Amino acid sequence: MRMIETDPEPFVRGIIDGNRRMIAKTITLIESNLRAHQQTAISVMEKILPRTGNSIRLGVTGVPGVGKSTFIENLGVYLADKGHRVAVLAVDPSSQRSGGSILGDKTRMEKLSAHANAFIRPSPAGETLGGVAAKTREIMLICEAAGFDVILVETVGVGQSETSVAAMVDFFLVLMIAGAGDELQGIKKGVLELADGIAINKADGENLKAVEKTKGGLEAAMHLLRPETPTWFTPVLTCSSLVEGGTKKVWETVLDHHQKFKASKEFLQRRKKQSLNWMWTLVEEGLKQRFKRNEKINQAIPLISRQVEDERMTPAAAAEKLLSYL
Amino acid sequence: MRMIETDPEPFVRGIIDGNRRMIAKTITLIESNLRAHQQTAISVMEKILPRTGNSIRLGVTGVPGVGKSTFIENLGVYLADKGHRVAVLAVDPSSQRSGGSILGDKTRMEKLSAHANAFIRPSPAGETLGGVAAKTREIMLICEAAGFDVILVETVGVGQSETSVAAMVDFFLVLMIAGAGDELQGIKKGVLELADGIAINKADGENLKAVEKTKGGLEAAMHLLRPETPTWFTPVLTCSSLVEGGTKKVWETVLDHHQKFKASKEFLQRRKKQSLNWMWTLVEEGLKQRFKRNEKINQAIPLISRQVEDERMTPAAAAEKLLSYL
Repeated sequence: MRMIETDPEPFVRGIIDGNRRMIAKTITLIESNLRAHQQTAISVMEKILPRTGNSIRLGVTGVPGVGKSTFIENLGVYLADKGHRVAVLAVDPSSQRSGGSILGDKTRMEKLSAHANAFIRPSPAGETLGGVAAKTREIMLICEAAGFDVILVETVGVGQSETSVAAMVDFFLVLMIAGAGDELQGIKKGVLELADGIAINKADGENLKAVEKTKGGLEAAMHLLRPETPTWFTPVLTCSSLVEGGTKKVWETVLDHHQKFKASKEFLQRRKKQSLNWMWTLVEEGLKQRFKRNEKINQAIPLISRQVEDERMTPAAAAEKLLSYL
Repeated sequence: MRMIETDPEPFVRGIIDGNRRMIAKTITLIESNLRAHQQTAISVMEKILPRTGNSIRLGVTGVPGVGKSTFIENLGVYLADKGHRVAVLAVDPSSQRSGGSILGDKTRMEKLSAHANAFIRPSPAGETLGGVAAKTREIMLICEAAGFDVILVETVGVGQSETSVAAMVDFFLVLMIAGAGDELQGIKKGVLELADGIAINKADGENLKAVEKTKGGLEAAMHLLRPETPTWFTPVLTCSSLVEGGTKKVWETVLDHHQKFKASKEFLQRRKKQSLNWMWTLVEEGLKQRFKRNEKINQAIPLISRQVEDERMTPAAAAEKLLSYL
């Protein structure tokens, strides 16, 4: 990596001017693990913070095969054509291990990446989901300070990343497809409950009948869950890359949610709560890191874990023992 | 509180002999916050550990009004009559604040509490859910060492306690009633996903039609969730205190699950995983406690939290700052 200046000012000015090269350089700074870079990054974030927050943050999840890239490209182009400035980010903690990354290949969103109003950024590298999500969160703020007013955060719906993404957006959209028969392919327990909206994709042609059935089932299922607020009841939408209007309908739903949450003051409340929760998540992660970096503890963990698994030590005694090494 | 001996042996012998007075005394020891008592408690737990694990651990949750006490009493009496030794424990972190406790009033389970094969224990007092759950977990082990072969752990389905209980049992049963119309009253997001089985209670008389409708809806909803294992698909049962056979059916389902999980080796795997997770939960809680007990941090938290809420500080910078005080 080339040397990066330690003066935060050029980064801050570059971001505010919407200079793409400087935005990219700041993101490199954010993603760097070097202590000096991290210090500069913190200064940059501090300075741009007053200019952040003015976007609609939309999270999109869905298992592979659900048509997520095409959906995001369609939505992104639709919004960019309307004059919105759209940033597309990704949270994919598996990208490093698997070699392939969602959004890693910009050609997957050819039209959108060529659009003057769009900015696409693949998932940051990182060893932990927490690390990846932390960086994505800061990149989101950088994009906001640079004037992007819609941030799409994509995640693949197979791991723990949905919770992280739902915790950083205003609206969490779950993309699905109708399965053969009653069942939805691969939907993970818990993901539905995070959804502010569900969209069944590939609602076209011969698929339509299965989609309608799935829609009915999902609506019934959502009825069984107590909504978190009287302001919003998670809707089940349909869309398709082959049929006009689905993308628009999804966006109108996001806007409807946005307006209702603004009116009820829940919009700001949710963001404040997200920020505080995020702080505590980072504190917890920091504490755990320090804990695991302790050499004595590190050495003791395998043996103590085995004793707990084999019921030769209670979890309480084991925890007490590990903590005593601190 | 009367003085409690620091020698673990009498406790251990008392428990193994199934001496109810000594079991109660050990539980008092477990619930004590005095350091000396806690030391003795750890020794006792260590010594009884090889005798634990030989029970079926059944968690039961449901919001107030669902008929939980009556259901548990019926199930408990049914099992105790069959010769099982049944312990009923409760996890209710609200019991201290609200003054009222589930199981606090033994007369609520008059028949069961009078049964020679049954042991009923109200929720331990505790400031945190973690504390209450920790104690309940140890009480469960004490009951197992004392020869109880069915442990029913009751919790009220309105807080965070379901997750704690689901994390300590072999089978997590969610009790429900049919609502007016389609909706189930008060079911919390996430609780359904923890369920190994769902039972719709009060399935009798005029209620039957609504129950059938709810059952169908729930079955469809459960179909939408990917089961965690191919070994088990969460069934939806019905039961009633007025109709014969429902309690028996629920128990047979628990046994069926037990046998299938034993055969697939998932039974032991789940328990091992639960123990390890529990150790880590306790470690995390210990770390957080130490963190919050730090005076400088304690003083800084309100101001820093406000700065994060007001977007004057990023969560990352705030976490870093708090951790730097350690």
